[in-house]
Amino acid sequence: MPHLGEDDLIARFFAPLAGEGGLGLKDDAALIAGEPGCDLVVTCDALVAGVHFFADDPADAIAAKALRVNLSDLAAKGARCKGFVLALALPPDLRTEAWLGAFARGLGDDIASYACPLLGGDTVSTPGPLTISVTAFGAVLAGRMVPRTGARPGDLIYVSGTIGDAALGLQLRLGKVIAGQGAEHLLARYLRPQPRNALAAALLDHASAAMDVSDGLAGDLAKMMRVSGASAEVEVASVPFSPAARACVAADRGALKCALTGGDDYEILATIPPQNASTFEARAADAGVAVTRIGHVVRGDETPVFRDASGAPLTFMRASFSHF
Amino acid sequence: MPHLGEDDLIARFFAPLAGEGGLGLKDDAALIAGEPGCDLVVTCDALVAGVHFFADDPADAIAAKALRVNLSDLAAKGARCKGFVLALALPPDLRTEAWLGAFARGLGDDIASYACPLLGGDTVSTPGPLTISVTAFGAVLAGRMVPRTGARPGDLIYVSGTIGDAALGLQLRLGKVIAGQGAEHLLARYLRPQPRNALAAALLDHASAAMDVSDGLAGDLAKMMRVSGASAEVEVASVPFSPAARACVAADRGALKCALTGGDDYEILATIPPQNASTFEARAADAGVAVTRIGHVVRGDETPVFRDASGAPLTFMRASFSHF
Repeated sequence: MPHLGEDDLIARFFAPLAGEGGLGLKDDAALIAGEPGCDLVVTCDALVAGVHFFADDPADAIAAKALRVNLSDLAAKGARCKGFVLALALPPDLRTEAWLGAFARGLGDDIASYACPLLGGDTVSTPGPLTISVTAFGAVLAGRMVPRTGARPGDLIYVSGTIGDAALGLQLRLGKVIAGQGAEHLLARYLRPQPRNALAAALLDHASAAMDVSDGLAGDLAKMMRVSGASAEVEVASVPFSPAARACVAADRGALKCALTGGDDYEILATIPPQNASTFEARAADAGVAVTRIGHVVRGDETPVFRDASGAPLTFMRASFSHF
Repeated sequence: MPHLGEDDLIARFFAPLAGEGGLGLKDDAALIAGEPGCDLVVTCDALVAGVHFFADDPADAIAAKALRVNLSDLAAKGARCKGFVLALALPPDLRTEAWLGAFARGLGDDIASYACPLLGGDTVSTPGPLTISVTAFGAVLAGRMVPRTGARPGDLIYVSGTIGDAALGLQLRLGKVIAGQGAEHLLARYLRPQPRNALAAALLDHASAAMDVSDGLAGDLAKMMRVSGASAEVEVASVPFSPAARACVAADRGALKCALTGGDDYEILATIPPQNASTFEARAADAGVAVTRIGHVVRGDETPVFRDASGAPLTFMRASFSHF
């Protein structure tokens, strides 16, 4: 295609996606109108090709993942999506009509699905891998954001959806596990996270702490307990697995640890005071999001314990995924 | 140094820089408390090593540049700094005590100087060049952000500081120009932009349009006029140059076009209705920021004309820097 300057590229592919506060992407800045009685929740996640996704993943799936991992953080905080800005460092070989068109289409679909408009950003060239930083904004009632630090002994621990699918999907993608049936489900769960924004309002009203599970359930629970000054007991038999993940675990015991410590779930991990539990479950059901109680918060500063059906603790070589 | 996981790295180098809304960088998100009667201005700029700065620039200068190019956008919008989030894609060779320490120090100095706290972000590894995305936040009175689109025929055109120093400094850095005396000044202006946040309040009260000059005066003025539906006349003899830039221009006529079209000035370009001009100049003087009238807005949709002392128009091969 003819050489597209940065302004042309923005006008052609991104301006059509801009919400009102994006000012048509014609200004240096975007505007988020004040909302009386609300705080703004801000989250930022960066993704690098070859590190967080495969460089040859479909462009629309890459766009969706970059946005959704941020939407997942907003969901965990009980926030309603307000919009996002996008910083795109683009290698020369992706500056094509086909790639940019598909990327913008993927972004546009999610902007519509999650009512989260594009507000602005920056597009630069890079000699390195595609690098995407999204900063997303959400609104919560003032002083009410669900913290990561609020878990208290006695609270019940819940997760949304199913755990481990994406980590097993990644192993499949790398050719490391043969899952038998259900491979498509696992691959899709790795490729396209499903953020649980429908659960945000129920979390806001009922959770003492919440975060999204992005670096593995075991590691993320450990982080939450550490910053909350508590510990936890989890019954592995209660952790929700998809049929495809169950098939993996049945075939290969190592798959269980992969599922519990692998990343990219983008499910919600929340602690719910016992008196809120039945209402939280009802609200989640109304929102169409499955939630499952997997354990409870206890006093102490030990790493959370995951027990099998016999009550024996599992040990993990590494509790969570780290990019370093 | 011992292997630092992402959480350790954040705790050690970045958590000490976090403002109140950053929640100690222990949460998935940051919080910007609502400010009654104010809108939030959001700006996002990404910088890539080897594209926007030299990979071997001092780490503290790289940190300062990444933040300051964003602060410059807030200044242009008339906004008061509220904080920023940082997405850092870090190649393995920079994961050293020395580099990260210097980067955090540079960031910390500017956080203090500009009263703009770190609120959050993300740190990831990359096999490519260092890539830094900053999203910065500012507050303006509701509905009062200074737009890029508001220039009207008859308005006077002002710039802050001096124009072209950074572009000439880049040429020097590339060994392409010998400036004689003043080389240090030009090199420093390229390495460390000086955002004009002290001018924000005067712009808010008096400017019809403003933007920061990041891609060259000629090109950025053309952008402003295009989105405002107007054109402009600029007297080149009025454009403020530093003594060092003047020396370059005297030695090499090509340096003039470099100064007028090169990027990285991070000065403010503003249009001021004539009735506001004297008050704007007085407010700028009070704020300690030099401003100079360089021309005026006219009707039409032609590219702005830059005239030399004889009244003859200059022609530019390319009006602005583009990363593509």
